[in-house]
Amino acid sequence: MNPIQLFDPVSSTFTYIIAGPNDDEAAIIDPVDEHWERDLAHIERLGLRLVYILETHAHADHVTSAGRLRALTGAKAAVPSGCGIPPAELQLCDGDVIRFGKEETIAVLHTPGHTAGSMCYVWRGNVFTGDTLLIDGCGRTDFQGGSAAALYDSVTRKLFALPDATRIWPGHDYKGQSVSTIGWEKQHNARLANRSLADFVVLMGQLNLPRPKLIDVAVPANRNLGLPHSV
Amino acid sequence: MNPIQLFDPVSSTFTYIIAGPNDDEAAIIDPVDEHWERDLAHIERLGLRLVYILETHAHADHVTSAGRLRALTGAKAAVPSGCGIPPAELQLCDGDVIRFGKEETIAVLHTPGHTAGSMCYVWRGNVFTGDTLLIDGCGRTDFQGGSAAALYDSVTRKLFALPDATRIWPGHDYKGQSVSTIGWEKQHNARLANRSLADFVVLMGQLNLPRPKLIDVAVPANRNLGLPHSV
Ligand SMILES: [Fe+2]
Ligand SMILES: [Fe+2]
Repeated sequence: MNPIQLFDPVSSTFTYIIAGPNDDEAAIIDPVDEHWERDLAHIERLGLRLVYILETHAHADHVTSAGRLRALTGAKAAVPSGCGIPPAELQLCDGDVIRFGKEETIAVLHTPGHTAGSMCYVWRGNVFTGDTLLIDGCGRTDFQGGSAAALYDSVTRKLFALPDATRIWPGHDYKGQSVSTIGWEKQHNARLANRSLADFVVLMGQLNLPRPKLIDVAVPANRNLGLPHSV
Repeated sequence: MNPIQLFDPVSSTFTYIIAGPNDDEAAIIDPVDEHWERDLAHIERLGLRLVYILETHAHADHVTSAGRLRALTGAKAAVPSGCGIPPAELQLCDGDVIRFGKEETIAVLHTPGHTAGSMCYVWRGNVFTGDTLLIDGCGRTDFQGGSAAALYDSVTRKLFALPDATRIWPGHDYKGQSVSTIGWEKQHNARLANRSLADFVVLMGQLNLPRPKLIDVAVPANRNLGLPHSV
């Protein structure tokens, strides 16, 4: 079972809609502000009802539509408990399971590193990795409680422990790639395959990436599910 | 079961990779020349082996990578018999069934209208509609043996006869939409829902679309599976 994968070309962000076969309830993962109409149109055309809106973390590069989708559909917002997003109904912890539809389950994995609170979500042989593990790469670890050592642990101990055939659906891709597998990334990921923790920490420390342009707007907005703060 | 959906932003073309659960054989539908490496990377990362390359028609707006993928993988090319693509191994007719993997079947529907030879492919509750039926629209009918009356018949008698929950994966989209259903298009498609044949023929006759820029290059190339003609 694959998700519906949608793309925001401005921030290179993937959004996912998931639903079981012959089911009428859906969840959406990491929806992007500008695309709330596109995303609702998909849900309507597929005959689905949105029941959960999940965030993998408080994004620094785009604003979520979670608050708006929640207001329009009545779906519940489910976010990592460590990301400081108080208005969400569900504050998720490692090991939690979200149930929806006839028999769908989403298993919650706490995978700190890109941010301290980052989570990955496992559904039907798929893992939604946010910015923890990207295709042939990984998220940066230099803000919001990020830690290269924590990311190394999250990927090598938690994600690489999933079955090799598990499909990886990342939060971003900048090279036109859409999906990978645990087996492939374990063997080939340019940053994490066959690399020691010490090497990885040095590598991440040398990236010298520019500060995300939107961070001062996006993070506070995302901590309020993308809605304007009340005065 | 959803396909892997990939996009070419230059021609707004969708390419699809399909495979059964826990299977190792895959088919690809309407691959685009420029993206052969991207597409093979997906197949490799997913641990799949490409066995069929399907074309919905001889495209006028982009060149296929079918010939190249065939040479690199040994997969067979399967094309509509009425599209004039002689080098393909399989010349498909209405009602044919392609089998691959452990138990995958692709049912072939001849749906003339966009071009005289156009086909749609049905797999696991999904229909790949090429340019016959688009999301909230349809392909043009003014070249390559196109016929508005034939398209109307193909859509209303063949595609709209599929179960309402069947997911529609189109060959193009120009509005950021990715997937629809037969049920939704039957009720809402701007060109075809609740419209008479006569009205539809008038509508299509008034479109006055410019001639596709690439048609004189793309169609001859696609009739040779995208490979340069030998002298
Ligand atoms: Fe991020
Ligand atoms: Fe076409």
